[in-house]
Amino acid sequence: MKKKKQKVNAAILIIGNEILSGRTQDKNTAFISNWLNTSCGINVEEVRIIPDVEKTIIKNIKKLSNKFNYVFTTGGIGPTHDDITSKSIAKAFKLKYGYNEEAFKILENYYGKKKFNDGRKKMAKMPRGAKLIYNPSSAAPGFMTKNILSLPGVPSILNSMIENCKRFLIKGSRVHSKTLNLFTVESNISERLGLIQKKYKKYVDIGSYPFFRLGKIGVSIVSRSTSKDKLLKVNKDLLELVKNKKIKILKI
Amino acid sequence: MKKKKQKVNAAILIIGNEILSGRTQDKNTAFISNWLNTSCGINVEEVRIIPDVEKTIIKNIKKLSNKFNYVFTTGGIGPTHDDITSKSIAKAFKLKYGYNEEAFKILENYYGKKKFNDGRKKMAKMPRGAKLIYNPSSAAPGFMTKNILSLPGVPSILNSMIENCKRFLIKGSRVHSKTLNLFTVESNISERLGLIQKKYKKYVDIGSYPFFRLGKIGVSIVSRSTSKDKLLKVNKDLLELVKNKKIKILKI
Repeated sequence: MKKKKQKVNAAILIIGNEILSGRTQDKNTAFISNWLNTSCGINVEEVRIIPDVEKTIIKNIKKLSNKFNYVFTTGGIGPTHDDITSKSIAKAFKLKYGYNEEAFKILENYYGKKKFNDGRKKMAKMPRGAKLIYNPSSAAPGFMTKNILSLPGVPSILNSMIENCKRFLIKGSRVHSKTLNLFTVESNISERLGLIQKKYKKYVDIGSYPFFRLGKIGVSIVSRSTSKDKLLKVNKDLLELVKNKKIKILKI
Repeated sequence: MKKKKQKVNAAILIIGNEILSGRTQDKNTAFISNWLNTSCGINVEEVRIIPDVEKTIIKNIKKLSNKFNYVFTTGGIGPTHDDITSKSIAKAFKLKYGYNEEAFKILENYYGKKKFNDGRKKMAKMPRGAKLIYNPSSAAPGFMTKNILSLPGVPSILNSMIENCKRFLIKGSRVHSKTLNLFTVESNISERLGLIQKKYKKYVDIGSYPFFRLGKIGVSIVSRSTSKDKLLKVNKDLLELVKNKKIKILKI
């Protein structure tokens, strides 16, 4: 008998003044969220972006840790004074903050004893008991504390580490999606679309998103569900609506 | 005598499954945050991304409304079934939800009586007492309820409306910033940088962000402060650090 998979959820906590101020465009949310769903069947249900302020980090870590199965943090684990994620997580859980032996060895080996200065040593400091998330690009590991997985903020480095998170995660049921791109406006289909959503309320989430492509206005209808069968049923109903309203489909 | 400006802060609440699932990359945070700071001297201190779920929207609206001077919501004010921002805000503040007369007239005039169907009419439904934020691109107005300003999710439309938010906002003191792009690594400067941050702790926030450009690794040092004088002082200290360490500056 196939074991029924459970729902597993996560939150993302983006830590960094540069994202809040608008100086840097966050790219980690979309990447992590996509990866979690397709590779682990984990659904991201909340994202927060907060400043590099210890009190704020602690409060949010506690809150999200209680509320979700996993919390992914990005940013604040580098060598400079504004990198305070590790210390804040230690404080949030009342854990000792100090050198992680394995991380220390990895970094010492990577930089060589001579170049292993205080800034670099700082990247080996973690909450006691943290499990390492290895970093194939630039050595400095991320780490897992309780249900919190801490990754760096630089997207290319984060992306290279994400597969190393997998061994820490329980798999859930993947959300599948199907998109229908229509050359119409939302208000032309909103009523019928609402009825279809009502019919499949329990199983499928239907979203409607305007787009502008090839100089034309359109609407993408995105259906999401853990059941492929239910998605096919919704798609059949949608295609009937499209046929009735004589709407053109954009094939891409 | 020049009146001393106060600190004014804001939060952004991004409402939409498409952002959470990673399907759509959020661009509104960076735009709103930049605009608020440069045009109004308002500092964004928290961003949350949440799904199209009424209970979740209500909870977050209440929480953020209490905590910040202003809350900007994006998304969920269109004509389809998944557009539930207006109704949820009404419920959060126990306000009646119904047609806003002015919005109704604007939309009826824009579409013409014949084409003004139920989906389009829905966009005129708002919490009672809402003040309109006019929309020069596609007519459907945003609105302000208490300290919440609700804008659409489509970035081009949101961008065209943002100036119309200004009349509702109290101006704060603008945060100025200065960036120094250095061809070095963070750990080479982290100690000295930490000391400079300590010296100006009360007035200036110094952030350090690695970059990769022209095939080289570098670090952007970003100083932010409401005082231009203090920024200049920090910059002087930073340039001395750069000179001492013989670091090359990237001029762009």
